[in-house]
Amino acid sequence: MKGKVYLVGAGPGDPELLTLKALRLLRTADAVLYDDLVSPEILSLISPKAHRQNVGKRCGTKRIRQEEINFLMIALAEAGLHVARLKSGDPLVFGRAGEEMEALRRAEIPFEIVPGVTSALGAAAIARIPLTHRHASSSVVFVTAQRAEGKEAEDWSKLVSSGSTLVIYMPGKDYLALSRRLKAAGLAATTPCAIVSSATTTRQSAYRTTITDLWQVPQVLSPTLLVVGEVVRYAGDSVVDEFRTHPSASSLLAEFQRESNPRSDEERTA
Amino acid sequence: MKGKVYLVGAGPGDPELLTLKALRLLRTADAVLYDDLVSPEILSLISPKAHRQNVGKRCGTKRIRQEEINFLMIALAEAGLHVARLKSGDPLVFGRAGEEMEALRRAEIPFEIVPGVTSALGAAAIARIPLTHRHASSSVVFVTAQRAEGKEAEDWSKLVSSGSTLVIYMPGKDYLALSRRLKAAGLAATTPCAIVSSATTTRQSAYRTTITDLWQVPQVLSPTLLVVGEVVRYAGDSVVDEFRTHPSASSLLAEFQRESNPRSDEERTA
Repeated sequence: MKGKVYLVGAGPGDPELLTLKALRLLRTADAVLYDDLVSPEILSLISPKAHRQNVGKRCGTKRIRQEEINFLMIALAEAGLHVARLKSGDPLVFGRAGEEMEALRRAEIPFEIVPGVTSALGAAAIARIPLTHRHASSSVVFVTAQRAEGKEAEDWSKLVSSGSTLVIYMPGKDYLALSRRLKAAGLAATTPCAIVSSATTTRQSAYRTTITDLWQVPQVLSPTLLVVGEVVRYAGDSVVDEFRTHPSASSLLAEFQRESNPRSDEERTA
Repeated sequence: MKGKVYLVGAGPGDPELLTLKALRLLRTADAVLYDDLVSPEILSLISPKAHRQNVGKRCGTKRIRQEEINFLMIALAEAGLHVARLKSGDPLVFGRAGEEMEALRRAEIPFEIVPGVTSALGAAAIARIPLTHRHASSSVVFVTAQRAEGKEAEDWSKLVSSGSTLVIYMPGKDYLALSRRLKAAGLAATTPCAIVSSATTTRQSAYRTTITDLWQVPQVLSPTLLVVGEVVRYAGDSVVDEFRTHPSASSLLAEFQRESNPRSDEERTA
């Protein structure tokens, strides 16, 4: 009998921002194929009996091609396994789930999408930026600064002129070029923006600035997101809180980690 | 000592799509102020000791004004309580969290944002629509068809001409008017779109059509979302699966519900 593939969103970083459904699948899947950005804390929730494999292809260094990931998912499901394909954020937003779904459909493998908290929402939460606001913006766009190979950089002028809040995924490290590109698209130099780094993790940080001063922001750890628009003014003057895992969160997670690793407990008591 | 307010996303509907953090806060908050769209299954996770109050203002029938919600949140927190302000989806996307944050800031009440799975991601998951796709769309816009009182309907032509996938929150029931508005914004009559209703609940349904045939879609239960763009073609021919709560999910949730309601268990055994 064929198995099944679950394309699962792991959320923005904090293991507490996993959904209950994602947690259940990590605990019960026979195999987990995960991306680079998924944290060790989240990986520790995977059942110790499961086959686990990093299929990340971070920063363009192609360790594994998309076709190979598709092949692997299908082969494991053909062998009757329940496979969790774990992606950071949400699988349907810049997650290449479209290509994986097509491959699964062609191979007639049953599959299901398990949505997650996409990175923009994690970044906005820690920087306290309302992505929409009755008095400032009635729409929000998620866009990426990176393009598929051989394609030209997208023209952002239409998005910009719509007055939408802009959330740029994978903005890259060249803030000066980014600032020029945003101005070329028609944004005023004084438009507020925020660089948010590693949101909802212990390394998180956020810098509020304007498009013209964006180049002065210190280089921060990736992954980063850039939020651009008048709504950034509504973030107030609050600096980002230090990220803390709540004690009862740790114990809740520890509970699950213990359940997932019964053997290591036995070893400890032995 | 002052309490604290948590602006918490409850996700798109399925209680299993709550984050672990949202679940923890429901179990531990002293007071929970919730919107109409939050399901009874999710409300059953609230601690029985907590003060709970529906502060919904659904479909424009203003049972309670935004200022009253702000006043209530602040009063409870001033009294030293930990308050969970529970919103469907994510609090920062069409959730009026911007206004609530401003009020909290003015009253000097500590607060925190707990992101959730926004409705668009739940809808895309059940209809299997990749919101971005390397070969079809490199950005996605969340927009609402409803406007603040006294404001004119927004011009969607710039968003449309950007080639973004469009997800329309609260599209309303007048599909013919919606179809005209989308065509007036410049979309081809043959552009594929999907109406998704009550995603990730037992009542979920999805209809795939084109802008020109949108008026033929039967009226479905709200809440609905409309997804518009070439990516809808990648949904395949799969009909939406019947929504099923996984047995182990039910037991996981039941476990938490039992923990949250120790008294009702005692009553049963008494």
